[in-house]
Amino acid sequence: MLEQLKQEVLEANLALPRYDLVTFTWGNASGFDEESKLMVIKPSGVSYDELTAEKMVVVDLNGHTIEGELRPSSDTPTHLELYRRFTGIAGIVHTHSPWATSWSQAGLELPVFGTTHADYFNGAVPCTRPMTTAEISGDYELETGNVIAETFETKQLSPLEVPAVFVHGHAPFTWGASPADAVYHAVVLEETAKMGSRTRALQPSASGISSALLDKHFSRKHGSHAYYGQAGKEESR
Amino acid sequence: MLEQLKQEVLEANLALPRYDLVTFTWGNASGFDEESKLMVIKPSGVSYDELTAEKMVVVDLNGHTIEGELRPSSDTPTHLELYRRFTGIAGIVHTHSPWATSWSQAGLELPVFGTTHADYFNGAVPCTRPMTTAEISGDYELETGNVIAETFETKQLSPLEVPAVFVHGHAPFTWGASPADAVYHAVVLEETAKMGSRTRALQPSASGISSALLDKHFSRKHGSHAYYGQAGKEESR
Amino acid sequence: MLEQLKQEVLEANLALPRYDLVTFTWGNASGFDEESKLMVIKPSGVSYDELTAEKMVVVDLNGHTIEGELRPSSDTPTHLELYRRFTGIAGIVHTHSPWATSWSQAGLELPVFGTTHADYFNGAVPCTRPMTTAEISGDYELETGNVIAETFETKQLSPLEVPAVFVHGHAPFTWGASPADAVYHAVVLEETAKMGSRTRALQPSASGISSALLDKHFSRKHGSHAYYGQAGKEESR
Amino acid sequence: MLEQLKQEVLEANLALPRYDLVTFTWGNASGFDEESKLMVIKPSGVSYDELTAEKMVVVDLNGHTIEGELRPSSDTPTHLELYRRFTGIAGIVHTHSPWATSWSQAGLELPVFGTTHADYFNGAVPCTRPMTTAEISGDYELETGNVIAETFETKQLSPLEVPAVFVHGHAPFTWGASPADAVYHAVVLEETAKMGSRTRALQPSASGISSALLDKHFSRKHGSHAYYGQAGKEESR
Repeated sequence: MLEQLKQEVLEANLALPRYDLVTFTWGNASGFDEESKLMVIKPSGVSYDELTAEKMVVVDLNGHTIEGELRPSSDTPTHLELYRRFTGIAGIVHTHSPWATSWSQAGLELPVFGTTHADYFNGAVPCTRPMTTAEISGDYELETGNVIAETFETKQLSPLEVPAVFVHGHAPFTWGASPADAVYHAVVLEETAKMGSRTRALQPSASGISSALLDKHFSRKHGSHAYYGQAGKEESR
Repeated sequence: MLEQLKQEVLEANLALPRYDLVTFTWGNASGFDEESKLMVIKPSGVSYDELTAEKMVVVDLNGHTIEGELRPSSDTPTHLELYRRFTGIAGIVHTHSPWATSWSQAGLELPVFGTTHADYFNGAVPCTRPMTTAEISGDYELETGNVIAETFETKQLSPLEVPAVFVHGHAPFTWGASPADAVYHAVVLEETAKMGSRTRALQPSASGISSALLDKHFSRKHGSHAYYGQAGKEESR
Repeated sequence: MLEQLKQEVLEANLALPRYDLVTFTWGNASGFDEESKLMVIKPSGVSYDELTAEKMVVVDLNGHTIEGELRPSSDTPTHLELYRRFTGIAGIVHTHSPWATSWSQAGLELPVFGTTHADYFNGAVPCTRPMTTAEISGDYELETGNVIAETFETKQLSPLEVPAVFVHGHAPFTWGASPADAVYHAVVLEETAKMGSRTRALQPSASGISSALLDKHFSRKHGSHAYYGQAGKEESR
Repeated sequence: MLEQLKQEVLEANLALPRYDLVTFTWGNASGFDEESKLMVIKPSGVSYDELTAEKMVVVDLNGHTIEGELRPSSDTPTHLELYRRFTGIAGIVHTHSPWATSWSQAGLELPVFGTTHADYFNGAVPCTRPMTTAEISGDYELETGNVIAETFETKQLSPLEVPAVFVHGHAPFTWGASPADAVYHAVVLEETAKMGSRTRALQPSASGISSALLDKHFSRKHGSHAYYGQAGKEESR
């Protein structure tokens, strides 16, 4: 069942320590099959070197385990809420990567300080508001997904054009057209968060590049006028 | 004698350079056997690549060497004082890991800036007061243990819920239910100290997450209502 | 055709990830053959582990592909403009290396904070002005080369003595007497940008070394009175 | 001739890149034979992977090459001046290691922020004054040694107890009882410079530990009352 997606989700999870995005088991990746409306996700608390495609857990959009012996990631309700709310995404990654987590802990959005950012994110990466005590005491992981979606609605951001968020006092989530795409965006976010911290240290008043430069770089790699790489987006990676 | 504990202590010591927590021989791990009231600890100044289980030193709670040809770590009296004062711990790690040592040198406690911290430490990681000249000139390593225990008593902290401390002007100690658990907490402390420094650089006024979020994350991984991982705490790692 | 230059350009491109200067495909190196006035450059968006000398693209100074099946780097017009304007250079490297990119994003020039800098760059590494909307909307990559050349003309800098620049809100370019030389300067720039950020953090008023010390170190390694290394400049590396 | 010392100097030079203290050829190590009053030093600008014991250059205290086909390091006169002025040292290391170089560029001494520092350096690591134009234009490398020695005389520091210095606007030198000892101190200096920068960022008013704590830690590892390690100083490493 969903063997290819399980393999993709396995590879996405294994990529997280390889890109130095996780310590211990502090991260997880999932994939979503649009046709069957099923999600494949990492089992909870299993170390990356013990993961296999068979250990992946298949869950439906209501959170019921459809296949798999292990308990799914404790962040499962967050992933599900994002697949329900953000139409068109098919992969999600959550890590506690240190630079992006520092921005989450600072409660700040990451401005578009340069073209590295503009090549992948069409605007600042937002930070959610702090969660309320009611949300935390209630269905916490579901509410985490909810506050992410609320952030994009309130700020009128497109999740397909800004595929990343900082959860306030917590850590980042990224997503994309596939599990591999979500991993890619997690790496980009960590790099741009690192450079953003250093930019701000050098120039506290730095506010970012012009909207013309942002538009130019984002459209160079995305949409019908893209001209980076050999053909489409995937190949250019 | 205590062959299994010696092996665990050996592995804990070898984990320190592997996790980039020590330079040269700047660190040591010990384990405590509750039944016999004996401690196993690294010999002093021996480099990690020459360590074997046989070289470990067995010491009783009064500091007498019970087994072993080598002199035990010069920090032995500190370890012993912690085992005497902190009931229920069975492993201790001391390193000069650079981020945690920087907080020790700054003389600051590490606030609960985010959920990474809250997953393992149920409150700020405290920093001891500076030691007095009398303490330094006296039984220095014993007094180091004493000032750590005093810090937890004064601040009314549970050493089992906040298994880490910064010794003022010196470096961190961590502990846990086993030598491996103490190593785990040393890694967590270094990661959270790093992210804490970067959080404060981005947002000097950052004061940390709400107590509701702290409680939620700590209890997600600890105690009878834990639901992270596949079963209990150890397996989730 | 230009087989040796292709090999040199290949090696220069492969050196970029080895020196930790690039993430994914965020960088490219080119070489210029003075006799034929042809440039060899990396194909666009191809990952470094798939590169071969045969995949390199040969382009003339007007930007026409002379040989090669793949589309040349999207930064090709920038490289060409630099070869046209900076007489005597034969290799160019562009990366988004994190420390140098942070200076680009901060919009600051890198002062000569020490002799490491003075050994290779005869003065501060400049930062271009921000590009105008017209430049960005027009022939963007060409205009990027143009604003770099303008920076050197306005500041009356010699591109052979200061073989590096920060493009405002973007990232660095470096160059040299060969593709390998341009790589070497990219490494030096990243190291000096890193140390410059840390110098400024320690001492915000630091303004750099005396012109006497700059002259001494630059001339120790460059020009007819150089006395570093075993013979000339190349061997000393 | 001096075969054992050549081997020691080779190993000290090879240790520099292994400890991440040098980029390219930016560093050198030498050793001094007290009996023959001869120095063995790395040849200038030769990369570390091409070094052999046979390529080492033997120089007398007047700077004349006694043995060796290659030109000695361009920093030779600095090394010689230190061996002439600092009685009892037998190894010197010069690097541009990034954290220590940042303190040199900031023109600041490194306070004794913690016990890691106190274990090896009996006081702040000093920074020289900036060199004068006359010194730079004259016998520059000799004058570099001179300003280092002057710094220790002016501040009444013992080079055996504080075996490290920052040359203003340049980079660090360290020394010791052997080439390996000088390498060891170069590693300690880089670690303490890193932690010092981070300490100051967290706590700008941090001024360092008490003299009682400094004395305690320095004497724990040095002198007749040392009790760290298994026997004497060398073995404890």
